[in-house]
Amino acid sequence: MIFLDQADAHSIAEQVRTARLSPGVVAEHFLTQIDAREAAIQAFAAHDPQCVRKQAQGLSSPRLNGVLAGVPVGIKDIIDTWDHPTAFYSPIYANNWPSRDAHVVALLRQAGAVIMGKTHTTEFAYMKTGPTRNPHDLRRTPGSSSAGSAAGMAAGLFALALGTQTAGSLLKPASYCGLYAFKPSHGLVSLEGVKPLAPSFDTLGWYGRSVRDLALLARVLVPGLVQTNRDSGARSFGFCRTSRWDQIDPPVAQALLAAIEHLKTAGHNVTEVVLEDEFASVFDDHQLINDCEGARSLSKEWQSNPEQMSPQVLAMIERARATTWDQETAARSRLAALAPILKAHFEPFDAMLGATCGMVAPLGLESTGPSDFCKFWMAFGLPQINLPLPRQPGELPVGLQLIGGYRQDSALLEAAQQVDMVISGL
Amino acid sequence: MIFLDQADAHSIAEQVRTARLSPGVVAEHFLTQIDAREAAIQAFAAHDPQCVRKQAQGLSSPRLNGVLAGVPVGIKDIIDTWDHPTAFYSPIYANNWPSRDAHVVALLRQAGAVIMGKTHTTEFAYMKTGPTRNPHDLRRTPGSSSAGSAAGMAAGLFALALGTQTAGSLLKPASYCGLYAFKPSHGLVSLEGVKPLAPSFDTLGWYGRSVRDLALLARVLVPGLVQTNRDSGARSFGFCRTSRWDQIDPPVAQALLAAIEHLKTAGHNVTEVVLEDEFASVFDDHQLINDCEGARSLSKEWQSNPEQMSPQVLAMIERARATTWDQETAARSRLAALAPILKAHFEPFDAMLGATCGMVAPLGLESTGPSDFCKFWMAFGLPQINLPLPRQPGELPVGLQLIGGYRQDSALLEAAQQVDMVISGL
Repeated sequence: MIFLDQADAHSIAEQVRTARLSPGVVAEHFLTQIDAREAAIQAFAAHDPQCVRKQAQGLSSPRLNGVLAGVPVGIKDIIDTWDHPTAFYSPIYANNWPSRDAHVVALLRQAGAVIMGKTHTTEFAYMKTGPTRNPHDLRRTPGSSSAGSAAGMAAGLFALALGTQTAGSLLKPASYCGLYAFKPSHGLVSLEGVKPLAPSFDTLGWYGRSVRDLALLARVLVPGLVQTNRDSGARSFGFCRTSRWDQIDPPVAQALLAAIEHLKTAGHNVTEVVLEDEFASVFDDHQLINDCEGARSLSKEWQSNPEQMSPQVLAMIERARATTWDQETAARSRLAALAPILKAHFEPFDAMLGATCGMVAPLGLESTGPSDFCKFWMAFGLPQINLPLPRQPGELPVGLQLIGGYRQDSALLEAAQQVDMVISGL
Repeated sequence: MIFLDQADAHSIAEQVRTARLSPGVVAEHFLTQIDAREAAIQAFAAHDPQCVRKQAQGLSSPRLNGVLAGVPVGIKDIIDTWDHPTAFYSPIYANNWPSRDAHVVALLRQAGAVIMGKTHTTEFAYMKTGPTRNPHDLRRTPGSSSAGSAAGMAAGLFALALGTQTAGSLLKPASYCGLYAFKPSHGLVSLEGVKPLAPSFDTLGWYGRSVRDLALLARVLVPGLVQTNRDSGARSFGFCRTSRWDQIDPPVAQALLAAIEHLKTAGHNVTEVVLEDEFASVFDDHQLINDCEGARSLSKEWQSNPEQMSPQVLAMIERARATTWDQETAARSRLAALAPILKAHFEPFDAMLGATCGMVAPLGLESTGPSDFCKFWMAFGLPQINLPLPRQPGELPVGLQLIGGYRQDSALLEAAQQVDMVISGL
């Protein structure tokens, strides 16, 4: 079963569809992986081997011919599933068992996927971390809030995983755990059955073992996203440091700049983009809106069970209560005014390059480091991808971020394929 | 119990809080109304008198001191409730029984409200109508998609009701049924547990018997919405016909213009606002985006149970499939470019006045008439209110629409109070 350790979802589904592998054999391989590694990693909030076996054994046509036939998937535990509890890492929801699947989980099952379990998240996808450890170094955080999905991917517990992002919750763990990740444009993927935090930013995304897996899941979860295959010729990239570049650890900056040099050497054009000073307000405006919307989203829990909420969430709600209506309006208006300026910056390019995080996964499980390089683009709802840079044995992962222009999800996936071909050859 | 027939939620809750009425007595009054009228009106998709009695009898402090203590509320059947089934008027969900309340339902219960049942909606809040009749004339539609909530309010089956709006689903039934209705700014009220249709527009709103009831529910469902009480002096209103004014039936136009004349006579300023020709594209752009997002929201049902979907929903999905990615992007970009222009038009005014619908409730139950005057403002996410114009016995209801500027929900509620004082005295 060595094959399955290396395989991406695309390969697994192909083997299952052509009956070279049964869904049951695939499931047993990953259950064995879970047996071996879960105690150390703690990726799962809920995992039931019998439920996995039942799904795998029950797969029949047309699902057995689906594009995800037999592919094991991890589901972040803020996403409803009818056959697993869904607790949002909050004691308030310790006994919550949804009656139906979230939209995206239903689509996964229709495509033949097998749900391996619910993966640990921070409380309500905000800041209070869970027990999950980084498979590259168990003393380090996997990042948050999609911690269990990212760590489980890195540990080989499943072949695809769903996460969500409001600030940096999908891409930061991808950077820390060395994963491919795709966050589509805001609003493209239905959030029915996904616990809201800040709806102006909340976006579902996913982890895969390759760019083609990111695109495969895009075809399942974003009906109508046309993916053309452009020639593999030279691309034009912007490279945007944002105003936070001085906060990047020098080795991380070095790795990113080296990757960009390789892109140029391989014949791609990279042009540095310097944003107007006004964009420095984006970080704070994102947080202010996140606070206000988070407080509104969690108002019913705050009214009924404040004693069961973490200091982190309570602090967010307190900040929101200290924020005036007009301050929130002003923050939104600033972002709205900047959006067309940013759009113009993207126009000459196939995609923008940047840092995903300013550091490798920090030591400790309670703090996960800043999300500034992710949330800057989140503030505008743009599609984002993390590509893991190649590394030497013992080195911790570093991620390169690619950002697409307004609704340029398909072009971004294509550009990522080109970039990955260059940097994975490093 | 004559008092309860006329009372608004504010009065009922006050009587309950001061122990002049028990929640049980209130519930029995409305259950009697339902017994008498439901067979003709068909407001309910699900209604269980025992469940109502149990809620009323179980009310204790602090809910018994809540701002909605004992107030009977109708809930549109696309909103999850743990103690009632939720079927979206789709046979696919005939056996769907949610495990937990939608965010807004939880907030209602925390404030002391009693859920009277689930009210009929069109299928997935789109166009296939249900059996509900207009209490003002049983041969006529109550409007859609919040049909059961509106008809139940007009028939006195509950004192408040929740609806949702994507095009005109809240305000059109308010206009046809003679109700006060408030649709807040897009994004303000959490949609957790509400079936999505077109998330760029989907907004939860409500019906009440008075402007103060609309404001009361705003305090419950929009924590942080500060409501100041400005003086009752003269207000400045814009009056915007939009490019569809020529489609208004002459008696409806007459009634609206007469109400505006009365506002002027009462000392308020009303200035006609003529929008740029570019705004004529808003109606089609709203529909195109609604189609594309609707198709994405319902993709799992379309893949699994197309034979159980109506021709109306299937036609929407077909239109979406015939729409290119770039056409959708262009429609979104046009709206984004118009938003700041529209914002400037609002700046001199406390609120904008306009038509809610171009006609009174049409005959028949299958078609509910156009939503253009509602969806024009929906395209920009602005807050909207319907005020019922006073009428002679035998006349069908006509509604006046008030629209607020960007995030001017509080100012809109205040302006509506002023306008209502004038027109309800007509």
